[in-house]
Amino acid sequence: MTSSKTAAPKLLESSCSIARSLGVVGERWTFLILREAFTGATRFAEFRAALGIASDVLTDRLATLVEYGVMAREPYQEPGSRPRDAYLLTDAGRELDVVLASLQQWGDHHLPRAEGNTIERRTREGGRPVHVGYIDDDGNEVAPRDVAVIRTAAYPT
Amino acid sequence: MTSSKTAAPKLLESSCSIARSLGVVGERWTFLILREAFTGATRFAEFRAALGIASDVLTDRLATLVEYGVMAREPYQEPGSRPRDAYLLTDAGRELDVVLASLQQWGDHHLPRAEGNTIERRTREGGRPVHVGYIDDDGNEVAPRDVAVIRTAAYPT
Repeated sequence: MTSSKTAAPKLLESSCSIARSLGVVGERWTFLILREAFTGATRFAEFRAALGIASDVLTDRLATLVEYGVMAREPYQEPGSRPRDAYLLTDAGRELDVVLASLQQWGDHHLPRAEGNTIERRTREGGRPVHVGYIDDDGNEVAPRDVAVIRTAAYPT
Repeated sequence: MTSSKTAAPKLLESSCSIARSLGVVGERWTFLILREAFTGATRFAEFRAALGIASDVLTDRLATLVEYGVMAREPYQEPGSRPRDAYLLTDAGRELDVVLASLQQWGDHHLPRAEGNTIERRTREGGRPVHVGYIDDDGNEVAPRDVAVIRTAAYPT
């Protein structure tokens, strides 16, 4: 198995921020660990039970997420047990929600299941359906075909 | 190396559409292959040269993308060469742009580099900055804190 310990540095040095993001969250299991964190999991045993993931892989993925500020360790201790670390999403981690939501939206649309979607995003006030897309600086939706991708002066030549 | 041939089926059977999407696009390299496709790459040699990726890995990733309708093969032949396949994004593939854009946005924000961002998204008309976020059914931006995640009747019990 290739570990994030060897993969991340190369991606993290990239001039491309997609590659850098993948250096932190692009490993197998990481998006599913984040999914569990967004639904309330904080403890190692919770992530492990929800995902059926090997302990060494989970340890490695959580360490990467902590190292790059996506999650923060917070010690806790249950009566009769040794102190342990919980893993909490930081503000930076919570900003990854839109990445998960965009993956979910694509899967709902292009890999549907007969029983329908299991999760919906709606406005808290009014319960109106919410989707992920492009927005201009006035807060209005922009159709994908109306979005231009522009190379800046920092783009490698 | 774990191949998508073994990893995808388990994820693709998930009731969670994040997991299903990852079954198609969550393998190492796939998002970077898509990034190259969005910037115009269509030929095997172009992907290989841009990414420095092993041929067998690239072959496997492209096969998965074709199998799940993200890319389509289109034969081409150059004078004096054997017929080859080009790989073109389908409509479903182009809808993954917002996933890449959300990864890019997060990396620009949380993993910045001294020389600045290399790519910007702007409106074609007017050149106004564009970001990725949540939008209601009237086309207005919704702040992440105002978005509720709701389990439907199809959510596994």
